[in-house]
Amino acid sequence: MIKEWRKIEEAGVTAPLGFRAAATRCGLKTAGMDLAWIVCDGEANVAGVFTTNLVQASCVRRNKKLVPSGNIRAVLVNAGNANACNGDQGDEDNETMASLAAQCLNIPSDQELTASTGVIGKWLPVERIEKGVMELMPKLARGVQTDAEVARAIMTTDTRPKLIAYSCRSDSWEGELVLGGVCKGSGMIAPNMATMLCFLTTDAVIDPSLLQKALRSAIAKTFNRVTVDTDTSTNDTCLALASGRGTAMISEGRESYADYAEALERICLYLAKEIARDGEGATKLVEVCVRNANKEEDAERIAKTVAESPLVKTALFGNDPNWGRILAAAGRSGVIFNVDDTDILLGEIPVCVKGRSVPFDEKAANRYLMGKEVQITINPHNGETQASVWTCDYSYDYIKINAEYHT
Amino acid sequence: MIKEWRKIEEAGVTAPLGFRAAATRCGLKTAGMDLAWIVCDGEANVAGVFTTNLVQASCVRRNKKLVPSGNIRAVLVNAGNANACNGDQGDEDNETMASLAAQCLNIPSDQELTASTGVIGKWLPVERIEKGVMELMPKLARGVQTDAEVARAIMTTDTRPKLIAYSCRSDSWEGELVLGGVCKGSGMIAPNMATMLCFLTTDAVIDPSLLQKALRSAIAKTFNRVTVDTDTSTNDTCLALASGRGTAMISEGRESYADYAEALERICLYLAKEIARDGEGATKLVEVCVRNANKEEDAERIAKTVAESPLVKTALFGNDPNWGRILAAAGRSGVIFNVDDTDILLGEIPVCVKGRSVPFDEKAANRYLMGKEVQITINPHNGETQASVWTCDYSYDYIKINAEYHT
Repeated sequence: MIKEWRKIEEAGVTAPLGFRAAATRCGLKTAGMDLAWIVCDGEANVAGVFTTNLVQASCVRRNKKLVPSGNIRAVLVNAGNANACNGDQGDEDNETMASLAAQCLNIPSDQELTASTGVIGKWLPVERIEKGVMELMPKLARGVQTDAEVARAIMTTDTRPKLIAYSCRSDSWEGELVLGGVCKGSGMIAPNMATMLCFLTTDAVIDPSLLQKALRSAIAKTFNRVTVDTDTSTNDTCLALASGRGTAMISEGRESYADYAEALERICLYLAKEIARDGEGATKLVEVCVRNANKEEDAERIAKTVAESPLVKTALFGNDPNWGRILAAAGRSGVIFNVDDTDILLGEIPVCVKGRSVPFDEKAANRYLMGKEVQITINPHNGETQASVWTCDYSYDYIKINAEYHT
Repeated sequence: MIKEWRKIEEAGVTAPLGFRAAATRCGLKTAGMDLAWIVCDGEANVAGVFTTNLVQASCVRRNKKLVPSGNIRAVLVNAGNANACNGDQGDEDNETMASLAAQCLNIPSDQELTASTGVIGKWLPVERIEKGVMELMPKLARGVQTDAEVARAIMTTDTRPKLIAYSCRSDSWEGELVLGGVCKGSGMIAPNMATMLCFLTTDAVIDPSLLQKALRSAIAKTFNRVTVDTDTSTNDTCLALASGRGTAMISEGRESYADYAEALERICLYLAKEIARDGEGATKLVEVCVRNANKEEDAERIAKTVAESPLVKTALFGNDPNWGRILAAAGRSGVIFNVDDTDILLGEIPVCVKGRSVPFDEKAANRYLMGKEVQITINPHNGETQASVWTCDYSYDYIKINAEYHT
């Protein structure tokens, strides 16, 4: 059991021992830093989960061949160019990006991973990346300033950086285990896949296959339960890096694994919710929670269908307690439940009981929906499982960001 | 084979012999006519296809028990109130609505169908319907003015009426066969189900089960291939009424059936495209056509995923030839195809060849996208079938209509 769970203020990927990082501007975005490098002092055990889109960027295809792995040394990340749909030239450019970084560290290029995010179908300007890597080399460091810069450098339409670090104690391991994380994501975000870019670090001692198992399990209940707009990117990448420099030993089938998996899930949940909160044009974070469902899979499917519904999302933007749209979305989810047993609550306010209208204080409901965090609960009363999906509202700014974002 | 296909200008549901109709305002919408009645002079053969949503309005549940049928006399339709999620009271109110209309016609109430559209979860004001029916009775008539009024009376967020009528000649029947139709639909429109309200009339002689077969088949390729916002209504209803007053006899397994089915599909396709064109906030009609696919089912699935993508739809509003979003949406459709063989065209302009960027005239592409009708073609080059799905763009007005539409 986790007995201490302490936030390390402002820290991110370099909080755990064994990691350094740096960020710089190389000129891929119109402004701001756009190149980041996370480097492990020794060989790290690394797990990865990637987009399930049939269209995959060069970096995704390359990384999938290299992880899980016991000897990764670094990840070079650029924002502003996805290097996707660029054919053989794209693969070559990505390989060049990896080998430029590997040369600086004097390691084989298959110990260097890459990640890209940005516009699809534009050539990657490799010479800018090369110049950028040269600048990064002497800047590699640990600390909150570095972590903040890394978080900013991987952003695209994100309006704020997303990073976190915690120290965690448990009777199942010695001393403290540190976890750090950073992610980006705001549009082209859909559940049921590894979404967005995310880099998770830890000082724990854990072998690659066990790390892979923990990562898959954490993602299933966190990043895969976030949706901004139902669109899945070609570049989605989530990597977990373990330096093994700490004192916590994680073993399969032991309590240490259960505790580590829980800690990793907490970190992922925080970052996943940050993505939904910062969804393109979002004015609020919305949790759609299905309780007392027959199966967790059914609960998740209902919650996702409601969370993806444009009519529910626009009603939330309008602060309108329009439960008819919520029930209608649940009804088209493909899950069989008894509509006449189903309740819907906005926060603590029941707005639909047994599938029909009940009198409620519409002003109070409207005020509740004006908050920055809103919870919708759907209760079909046919079982004992539950699942939540996180999303945001659809606003004028979603249209603005995506109609005025030109290729 | 159809040898003459002549549009009857401005006409709609009363164009075929044997039908009269009327429309009035009874006070369910904030303004305008909101009650329409389509009445057959004798017993009509009627087929129906309804929403697949688990949440179904009272009228849908009642109609499903009554059709296909050989003795329907009328359909009473209201807009402004869906009478959905109102429990037993809703069912009673709907039954009252039917029996009020039936009494006027001096027929048993199970020969009277009903259809409702509007807000979910509000009681139906039956006394207003009663008053409205009394006003309708003496107004029952045939002609283009009646047809136009019916089309307006069933509208909700629609910005224009949607009606059509054609006269059709074929060697497979005597004389002319007349088809009329009217529909409404603008939001909560999703494919793969019977969508929206639609009433189709004909003077042909065709038995109910054959009419049902023709209707299902026409809908599969028309209304079920339209999407505005992926949301499916609780009230979707499409009814086909055949008066049998004309000279065309339609027989199963004969050419007359093939010709009638084709004529019905043409009518449905016109009305389906009108719905997409008038999608909430739409500035253009968009056809997503997948050609040279392996299976029609695959072609339809890819086309739907692209047509539903908020990122594709916002790019279309911005007149941006962002083919990366189109390919990324196709890639998450669940269909397996070779990305490296896939071409994308905007109108006649190739923007992606073999899965990657090609130089194209961006100004010409931008100009093309500014048109009122846009075609996106996706060609995976792995077969010989094709399918189209119709949609519209996502604009600020979609958000405005749906965030400011309060319950």
